[in-house]
Amino acid sequence: MKIGFIGLGRMGAGMAARLREAGHELIVYNRSPERMQPLLELGASGAANVAAVCEAEVVFTMLANDAALDEVVFGAHGILAHLKPGGIHVSCSTVSVALAAKLAQAHGEKQQGYVAAPVFGRQDAASAGKLFMVVAGRAELITKIQPLLDVLGQRSFVVATEPEKANLVKLSGNFLIGAVIESLGEAMSLVEKGGVDRHQYLDLLTSSIFNVPLYKNYGAMIADRQFEPAGFAAHLGQKDMRLVLAAADELKVPLPFASILRDRFLGLMAHGGENLDWSAVGGLAAKDAGLVS
Amino acid sequence: MKIGFIGLGRMGAGMAARLREAGHELIVYNRSPERMQPLLELGASGAANVAAVCEAEVVFTMLANDAALDEVVFGAHGILAHLKPGGIHVSCSTVSVALAAKLAQAHGEKQQGYVAAPVFGRQDAASAGKLFMVVAGRAELITKIQPLLDVLGQRSFVVATEPEKANLVKLSGNFLIGAVIESLGEAMSLVEKGGVDRHQYLDLLTSSIFNVPLYKNYGAMIADRQFEPAGFAAHLGQKDMRLVLAAADELKVPLPFASILRDRFLGLMAHGGENLDWSAVGGLAAKDAGLVS
Amino acid sequence: MKIGFIGLGRMGAGMAARLREAGHELIVYNRSPERMQPLLELGASGAANVAAVCEAEVVFTMLANDAALDEVVFGAHGILAHLKPGGIHVSCSTVSVALAAKLAQAHGEKQQGYVAAPVFGRQDAASAGKLFMVVAGRAELITKIQPLLDVLGQRSFVVATEPEKANLVKLSGNFLIGAVIESLGEAMSLVEKGGVDRHQYLDLLTSSIFNVPLYKNYGAMIADRQFEPAGFAAHLGQKDMRLVLAAADELKVPLPFASILRDRFLGLMAHGGENLDWSAVGGLAAKDAGLVS
Amino acid sequence: MKIGFIGLGRMGAGMAARLREAGHELIVYNRSPERMQPLLELGASGAANVAAVCEAEVVFTMLANDAALDEVVFGAHGILAHLKPGGIHVSCSTVSVALAAKLAQAHGEKQQGYVAAPVFGRQDAASAGKLFMVVAGRAELITKIQPLLDVLGQRSFVVATEPEKANLVKLSGNFLIGAVIESLGEAMSLVEKGGVDRHQYLDLLTSSIFNVPLYKNYGAMIADRQFEPAGFAAHLGQKDMRLVLAAADELKVPLPFASILRDRFLGLMAHGGENLDWSAVGGLAAKDAGLVS
Repeated sequence: MKIGFIGLGRMGAGMAARLREAGHELIVYNRSPERMQPLLELGASGAANVAAVCEAEVVFTMLANDAALDEVVFGAHGILAHLKPGGIHVSCSTVSVALAAKLAQAHGEKQQGYVAAPVFGRQDAASAGKLFMVVAGRAELITKIQPLLDVLGQRSFVVATEPEKANLVKLSGNFLIGAVIESLGEAMSLVEKGGVDRHQYLDLLTSSIFNVPLYKNYGAMIADRQFEPAGFAAHLGQKDMRLVLAAADELKVPLPFASILRDRFLGLMAHGGENLDWSAVGGLAAKDAGLVS
Repeated sequence: MKIGFIGLGRMGAGMAARLREAGHELIVYNRSPERMQPLLELGASGAANVAAVCEAEVVFTMLANDAALDEVVFGAHGILAHLKPGGIHVSCSTVSVALAAKLAQAHGEKQQGYVAAPVFGRQDAASAGKLFMVVAGRAELITKIQPLLDVLGQRSFVVATEPEKANLVKLSGNFLIGAVIESLGEAMSLVEKGGVDRHQYLDLLTSSIFNVPLYKNYGAMIADRQFEPAGFAAHLGQKDMRLVLAAADELKVPLPFASILRDRFLGLMAHGGENLDWSAVGGLAAKDAGLVS
Repeated sequence: MKIGFIGLGRMGAGMAARLREAGHELIVYNRSPERMQPLLELGASGAANVAAVCEAEVVFTMLANDAALDEVVFGAHGILAHLKPGGIHVSCSTVSVALAAKLAQAHGEKQQGYVAAPVFGRQDAASAGKLFMVVAGRAELITKIQPLLDVLGQRSFVVATEPEKANLVKLSGNFLIGAVIESLGEAMSLVEKGGVDRHQYLDLLTSSIFNVPLYKNYGAMIADRQFEPAGFAAHLGQKDMRLVLAAADELKVPLPFASILRDRFLGLMAHGGENLDWSAVGGLAAKDAGLVS
Repeated sequence: MKIGFIGLGRMGAGMAARLREAGHELIVYNRSPERMQPLLELGASGAANVAAVCEAEVVFTMLANDAALDEVVFGAHGILAHLKPGGIHVSCSTVSVALAAKLAQAHGEKQQGYVAAPVFGRQDAASAGKLFMVVAGRAELITKIQPLLDVLGQRSFVVATEPEKANLVKLSGNFLIGAVIESLGEAMSLVEKGGVDRHQYLDLLTSSIFNVPLYKNYGAMIADRQFEPAGFAAHLGQKDMRLVLAAADELKVPLPFASILRDRFLGLMAHGGENLDWSAVGGLAAKDAGLVS
């Protein structure tokens, strides 16, 4: 199957490489063309623009935010105008529920397939095909792309027929991770100010009731107070909290923890932290407590 | 070694039974005497009052709250007055940092040993010797009681010499569990109101990045909206949030998530939920969102 | 001076009538034409559409939200396309900072004047010319319309040259009023549950340190638990909290009180309260406390 | 009538002077004796200890916190042991609801009268007899001391028969003032970061809908970023938030704004701000927003 891939950032590059390594004919596009080079070396062909990618039967997109995806789909040379009827757009970006719904409708009107497949996992999981795929779309479309999803992820979860619901699930998941970061930050500040070593404390937690990589990895960054280099940048975390709250706004769901996370991210941005790892939010409780300046 | 055990509630009964089953001579006391019966059947002897338990070399206490522990230690027939010099009081209750510090000082003045050893784990873990023990006290005391701790727990974590620090760690851990409950409640309300099945959602979470019993078990209670019978009652959860915040007050540590949990528990109490499982706090977001009345 | 007025809702109708009563030639437009009738009876002329209003030198708009104002300005028959160069658009609506900035730029490019003049005050103040006008725009434009502002308001406050700053000030003011509502709701719930009469309590507050109409009026609605008819509907309050937070998002300013208000309004909406007076948010603390069901 | 006065701090000194100036025979006591000097110069007599003050028919206390009042009442030479049957203790301190209730009971058992009369107003109001008195106690006791209350305050509000309810009202009032401080701090940070002058903004607010000294005075401190000298110290504000929340805990009333204030005060303490004016809490939003370091 001929596959297109648009967006070769930290995550997209690894995913596209997986697809190529699995033997698929691949055509790629990235706004900064130098990021296409490693894929070309793997045997992919490079496209001059988005339109050229749309000769593929299935086009993946993995972009940083709503604006980028909107442009790639609705722009003059965009997917909507150039994908063939029957072609499938698989959108892996973490974008707003509203944009996902808008895309679903637009593609539908053009008889183009649209599947939302945002992912959980960082760069290493993307490169290793160990992502968790949150999938929503019409059953026959998902059936068709399932072999591709299996190349990218260790498991796919189909959550609904309406694509935007996958985005809601993905955003809610990032909220849950944010809540882990904040709660660890608060707990560590409390025990540290009470005289307990924070690394030893984290070891206790993650050797007992929180024995899971998420707590270990983010906990270590918070305990080490080392938020660089960023695996997932704080400004992206802030965007996601904004999108979670926008969805909650639309659905009328009060979310007190999410509101606190929102303020934490804004505070971090206000102090120049946008390019730190988003776990830097877990360092703010220590600042509030006067443990660090 | 002759061991005393005071407080045969849900947790204490299982712990005392473990000690007896491990072959230790055991003398037990409980305010409601009928709860001593199962232990007597295991070969323990029953004491008429706290003072009588104090003939043991090591006396465990596992009580519901500060008031109960205060009475058992400082009361007219209490441990402080009757434990022999060199005897050791092992306090497993989840009590305030302030009371723990007060006990440490009082026992010290009487040349009595004092070790704080609060636990993580529910009733089944207590009965099976699978608790996680958070331990603080003087090293020679801990060495002496380590074999007993090994009977009770799958692992002991020594966090400090000062006993009250174990209580701070324990309380902070309950805060972290509370944060899990609240964040799951918020996330499930959001996705459910957005049209995603909440059981399927939980399965996705706990099969991927939150693959750990804590999320599974509390998540299931929240998804099922089934908060009875209580494994750990909401009024105890409320007490713990109060004690966490009291410690934070003393140490000057702002804890925004803990404050939200405080209000959640108060709201639950205000509506008659004190005897529900504390995971009922995870059901409040759904009420706020109008999903349940 | 010939004046146009678009938007004859609760507030706009009173403001337009003031301008006509002050002797100005007035042409009005409202989407629901029946609301133009009272103005026609005062001697105003009625326009068939927005474009027709634009023959006036100064065109006021007073609309419910961003979408309505956007349509009236940027629509096919909108102000932007039809206002004469040198004409002035005076925008009194409470809209987003982002839209205000967008309008300022668009009008500027057309050599049209643009002044933002959102107001504080309810319907009665609008009818009596007792509004407080928050004004921003170029000085020569403000000088020109000052006599009209003086007809509408008891006082004008010029806050900046850039129009959108008036909208920021207005939104922040609505946040402050929201904070009064919430804080009164919390305080009244606390004292009532403690056995103090809430009307007597309110009288104490507003006869002493809070001796100001805002506290008296909103306090009375909360103490009476009477949130109908709405002077200012809750769904508009919710919109304003959303706009305040959107501005804070853009400017990177954490606002914990505003976030709580956001959740309060969402909770109210989720329970069907969108058409209650926004002071109904001050009734939610009593629900949380179990004082009302 | 012979009157005793214990506690000659910032507030108490002014109140005691008023009583003396009104012609009453006055006996005073203060732990730091040098603070008695100005009263002696007005013709008061000085007592060597609390017991000696208790020869008076009516004994006022105005102390900093629960511990001080507890000691003065229950201590070996305290009021409880020495006030004559029929004597009246008028407690003006801002103390916990729990302590007030305990005092009410203890005095009742001794056939001593007990009236709670906490006050609103700062030092200047105390000296000028312009306080607002929040009064609770048995009617016949209040009748008896009313002439004294009239010397101290511009108005008395009798809220209940049970003394502790006056303390609840007083604490809730301090919460409301705290909410004003925080909300002004947030609003000013928002508009300032948006390019609006904060002094001009405050002038707008307090010339329009917030035209009341409370907003003017605290607003000016926040706009000036000048929190010294303290009219009311932050550590006292923190204590009051703690007491409000303790009352809410007891009564099961969730108070989200109060919880945020709690964290604000703790953060201020953690950075050495305990002796600043409590309006310094209104400066924290500007720090979070990166406006000040």
